[in-house]
Amino acid sequence: MSKMRVVIALGGNALQKNGEVTAEAQKSVASQVGKTIAKLSKKYEIILAHGNGPQVGNILIHEESAATDSAPAMPLETAVAMSQGQIGYWLAQAIDNAFTKENQHKTVASIVTQVVVDRNDPAFKHPSKPIGQFYTAKEAVKLAKLKGWEMREDSGRGYRRVVPSPKPIDIVERREILTLVNSGAIVIAVGGGGIPVTRTKVLKVLKGVDAVVDKDLAAEKLAELVKADVFVSVTAVPNAYINYGQPNQIAIGMTTVREINHYLDAGHFGAGSMLPKIQAVAKFAAKNKIGIITTPDNLELALRRRAGTIIQNLR
Amino acid sequence: MSKMRVVIALGGNALQKNGEVTAEAQKSVASQVGKTIAKLSKKYEIILAHGNGPQVGNILIHEESAATDSAPAMPLETAVAMSQGQIGYWLAQAIDNAFTKENQHKTVASIVTQVVVDRNDPAFKHPSKPIGQFYTAKEAVKLAKLKGWEMREDSGRGYRRVVPSPKPIDIVERREILTLVNSGAIVIAVGGGGIPVTRTKVLKVLKGVDAVVDKDLAAEKLAELVKADVFVSVTAVPNAYINYGQPNQIAIGMTTVREINHYLDAGHFGAGSMLPKIQAVAKFAAKNKIGIITTPDNLELALRRRAGTIIQNLR
Repeated sequence: MSKMRVVIALGGNALQKNGEVTAEAQKSVASQVGKTIAKLSKKYEIILAHGNGPQVGNILIHEESAATDSAPAMPLETAVAMSQGQIGYWLAQAIDNAFTKENQHKTVASIVTQVVVDRNDPAFKHPSKPIGQFYTAKEAVKLAKLKGWEMREDSGRGYRRVVPSPKPIDIVERREILTLVNSGAIVIAVGGGGIPVTRTKVLKVLKGVDAVVDKDLAAEKLAELVKADVFVSVTAVPNAYINYGQPNQIAIGMTTVREINHYLDAGHFGAGSMLPKIQAVAKFAAKNKIGIITTPDNLELALRRRAGTIIQNLR
Repeated sequence: MSKMRVVIALGGNALQKNGEVTAEAQKSVASQVGKTIAKLSKKYEIILAHGNGPQVGNILIHEESAATDSAPAMPLETAVAMSQGQIGYWLAQAIDNAFTKENQHKTVASIVTQVVVDRNDPAFKHPSKPIGQFYTAKEAVKLAKLKGWEMREDSGRGYRRVVPSPKPIDIVERREILTLVNSGAIVIAVGGGGIPVTRTKVLKVLKGVDAVVDKDLAAEKLAELVKADVFVSVTAVPNAYINYGQPNQIAIGMTTVREINHYLDAGHFGAGSMLPKIQAVAKFAAKNKIGIITTPDNLELALRRRAGTIIQNLR
């Protein structure tokens, strides 16, 4: 029997333990992830997607605050590409090393990935995602004029740029990712939700846009396109919860798409955190597949249905 | 008959016309490169390697001059990975768009690539390659102490960090690159000479090192490993020259490995510019293959042996 194909979406925060953000600290956390992925790959075909929130945040801070005429700041979409190189390198090396330590070898590749969004996605009219550094009110007004950025006051700490978060509709490199997975490689792809691109109206060519695609939704889209059997959103909590953070909080274990949609409608999941994960995982499970929410430590157990929130399309 | 397999090494400067370094300007140049590569790919299997000198230079300037505790600077090897994401994205999109404009499609993928160098390479004892920003003498002394950097005065403009430039001995992702080329994809790889890594003494695991691998030598190594038929180093001048820049300058057209080695020994090629290109191309040609030096504009003609410096291993 062929191996089950699993797409795993890892949070960008997952590489930063105790808030340590140096390359060394993040590589050290990546080596733990590498061990887990190497172990899982013996039983499953693995495609690893990852977030980039804190990493692309720092790239933008450096690019914007140190920009000069001879070293201009790269735009957001290119910064996402840079973060894919950065994190993709760390993860690929960590997985490769996990195999080497066991005297084994498996090919691992990080693919720079573009994610297509719709030019007419309503998100473009309602930028919602704060990115990059904080600015003073005066700087914010200036940047809004100079660069056309939408600026918004953020939790009393100053002004930040907000960008649209449109829905992913296609993955440009889906065929190459599939070719590599079919060859037996572990593939790292759609980093940071992918580099957001639209297709131009007439020529239909790709053009980068300053936006951020939700990494769980992008990874789910990839999971659909490569016909994965399981989609896992890895996060900091072992389960999704009903009444999260309240005395009557209940962990959701094995559940159905119908039940999870019921909880979704009832507003049980936090907009900035669990909601997009649940939406992505439930969307995937609805295609008669399996959707999982779990922690890095519980990944293996969850794939054997012994941990995590497991969503299936049962009636 | 199967297509000839060609590895093309493009200079990092090739994306910067008239010194324009914004993302928009570099993408615009990339679209020209994309057109050429798309056209060539109808007759040849293409792997595109590229330099990253000016791009990683600017990344380092931003990372170092805007570093804070909460947003620390990424080390050189990670900055190389970032530049691979950046330039790989621009080139992949440009090639993809060139096909779309002709109502055609071909898969294109940028692979984040690690290049293995020898821990005992003598280059580690003699750092020679200046990178990143200029510092004052005082700052230089401080950085040398604080970070262990080797600093050197550079052409009267201040002090810069110098790093080793060891020889490439292996390409970590060679199998994945081969899988994609065999599937018919155009592959972008070993950007900036690859992310330099060594293997540790006991465990033999990969570890990034702050060094820079010459992009022509790294691309040549890849050309050997994927059994390419032709290796092309693309540069700003249409040929290699004897007596370059002198009244008796002569362009080298069709030539042999023996002849080019004779010119090499006679010191005809400039250390910082043509020398590593000639070394890489001649090394490849010596394996009974074809090595070419030409401009982006003459690429197609050169592959038909109607332009450029063409080196073969004839006796």
